[in-house]
Amino acid sequence: MSGKVYLVGAGTGDEGLMTLRGLQCLKEADVIVYDRLASERPLDVTRKGAEKIYAGKFASHHTLKQEEINVLLAQKAQEGKVVVRLKGGDPFIFGRGGEEAEYLADQGIDFEVVPGVSSAYAVPAYAGIPVTQRGHTSTVAFITGHEDDTKDDSDIDWAHISTGVGTLVFLMGVRNLELIVKNLIEYGRPPETPVAVIRWGTTPQQQTIVGTLADIVDKVREAALTPPAITVVGEVVRLREKLNWFEKKPLFGKTILVTRARPQASQLVEKLSQRGAQVIEFPTIKIVPPSSFGEMDQAIQDMARYDWVIFSSVNGVESFFQRLRELGRDVRELKGIKIAVVGPKTREKIEDM
Amino acid sequence: MSGKVYLVGAGTGDEGLMTLRGLQCLKEADVIVYDRLASERPLDVTRKGAEKIYAGKFASHHTLKQEEINVLLAQKAQEGKVVVRLKGGDPFIFGRGGEEAEYLADQGIDFEVVPGVSSAYAVPAYAGIPVTQRGHTSTVAFITGHEDDTKDDSDIDWAHISTGVGTLVFLMGVRNLELIVKNLIEYGRPPETPVAVIRWGTTPQQQTIVGTLADIVDKVREAALTPPAITVVGEVVRLREKLNWFEKKPLFGKTILVTRARPQASQLVEKLSQRGAQVIEFPTIKIVPPSSFGEMDQAIQDMARYDWVIFSSVNGVESFFQRLRELGRDVRELKGIKIAVVGPKTREKIEDM
Repeated sequence: MSGKVYLVGAGTGDEGLMTLRGLQCLKEADVIVYDRLASERPLDVTRKGAEKIYAGKFASHHTLKQEEINVLLAQKAQEGKVVVRLKGGDPFIFGRGGEEAEYLADQGIDFEVVPGVSSAYAVPAYAGIPVTQRGHTSTVAFITGHEDDTKDDSDIDWAHISTGVGTLVFLMGVRNLELIVKNLIEYGRPPETPVAVIRWGTTPQQQTIVGTLADIVDKVREAALTPPAITVVGEVVRLREKLNWFEKKPLFGKTILVTRARPQASQLVEKLSQRGAQVIEFPTIKIVPPSSFGEMDQAIQDMARYDWVIFSSVNGVESFFQRLRELGRDVRELKGIKIAVVGPKTREKIEDM
Repeated sequence: MSGKVYLVGAGTGDEGLMTLRGLQCLKEADVIVYDRLASERPLDVTRKGAEKIYAGKFASHHTLKQEEINVLLAQKAQEGKVVVRLKGGDPFIFGRGGEEAEYLADQGIDFEVVPGVSSAYAVPAYAGIPVTQRGHTSTVAFITGHEDDTKDDSDIDWAHISTGVGTLVFLMGVRNLELIVKNLIEYGRPPETPVAVIRWGTTPQQQTIVGTLADIVDKVREAALTPPAITVVGEVVRLREKLNWFEKKPLFGKTILVTRARPQASQLVEKLSQRGAQVIEFPTIKIVPPSSFGEMDQAIQDMARYDWVIFSSVNGVESFFQRLRELGRDVRELKGIKIAVVGPKTREKIEDM
């Protein structure tokens, strides 16, 4: 049997931007090879026993590592495994997914591409900047910022792109910001053109610095902004003043610790996140089985003696029915016995059983 | 209470490319205002009673309609409703979401943006073309194809973009293909530059024509390719020869009719779709309640008389327990009675009850 590789875009730091198909691939995978992601929460859905391999790449080891990743993907697939190659953003927008696909094709290995939401436009969107806007621009270009700033022969055609494209988005461009600005101005982009530099976009740590080509370098230096960041150049940046929705969320900038037991915390975590908070899960409670089931088993044994069963929590319902199953019995044991609950959630739970 | 508008990108024709957050918004919405979508399946998840308004825009009525949509969104939100504005692709990549957001901001209405996978790169990906590839290009530009081809003063800066950008993607560019090609060649892009025109990308009807700037117009005319289509220009188009994964799926190009009852067909439909088939659901069976519940109610009444209950299908299990509930009873009635099932799916179902 031969395996298969799914090149999956994980979307940006906001894990809600993962696609349905991407999630499904993650759930079915035998092996997940993932990059440094803004959030590792998506990995929680993988099935028990799935192998998770961190392929985090650091700029200095790029070339070698990429070849190793290619070989790894091919090898796992040849073992008959379903492999997910999980990449931030989209695999084909500066994600090097094309190189991986080429290698797999050369080896005759079956692959599929699952596009993802790219940070190239999602990050500006979360900063209140639409990369295109009628009347402002009919073109948008994404440019890799991985150019070496010591190189003389840049393969970016500054002479043409500086003025030829309405909106320019430089990915990972903060380290080369000075070079980018110098080139754009040199090749005719007016110094008063608005610029935004967005760090940790789409996450609760998002930070946005707005300026012009003339002053953005100083502003970014003053704010001591470090990578990873995305730079947007163009008139559309002005729209942020009106459209900045994400950083205005009621809990944006707040860090909230959730101490509830993990299985029950998720809904709360989600609600807080949606209101913009940075949520840290730190469960101080853990629901575990009793050290002995003796008394409970006795009660189950003598069930017919009881007139009422009272459930005081969702956890109580779950534990009771789990034990019932383990004893080879089920809800039918409760025939003729009245059931009381404390609270609506416990009621819902018992009605589901 | 004031409502809220979510500007949601639905992704492309492949409904699996919808984001998790987009799906969640759809499920919670009171009102959904949607454009012409490649698939209306995403609308199936909306809750009962949600109002679905088709805002399909046709090129000729563009201006007026957009204003009407803006007003509609604001009005529904002001009524306190949760509104989803569902747009193909991403709302901010030529989706006019920016205009809607501006209008809402002006009216003081709360909004959020949920980015989507844009067809600008997902469609090329499904045709086996990564829009960026190391060594091939460090820039990609998306250009709207809605330019009027009778206009002299095009706001596309052909002189600069023709050669300044590695990969050019023209959205909806098939009607203006001749103009695009003429301009690119005139401003220095070599006539032998590879070009792909992709129609109905990411759907089972996907059709791809590959040529060069010199011959693509003739080839598209020969194939009688009509909109909607996306045009990709650049060296990356050559990679399709190796990376064309989607059109090679085992059932690609096949149309399959699924006659099973709708609630049970979805898993089959999904599996066929994943193998590339165009699936048409045409249920020839419908599961309905019996014309009279008399006999069944009698059997439930006398349950204690029976030694065995035999379930022959998942539908049988569902109908029996639904009726039990309607009579104010539950599974506990079956205490002491042996249960038999036909088939593993029915067994799973009864264990879930």
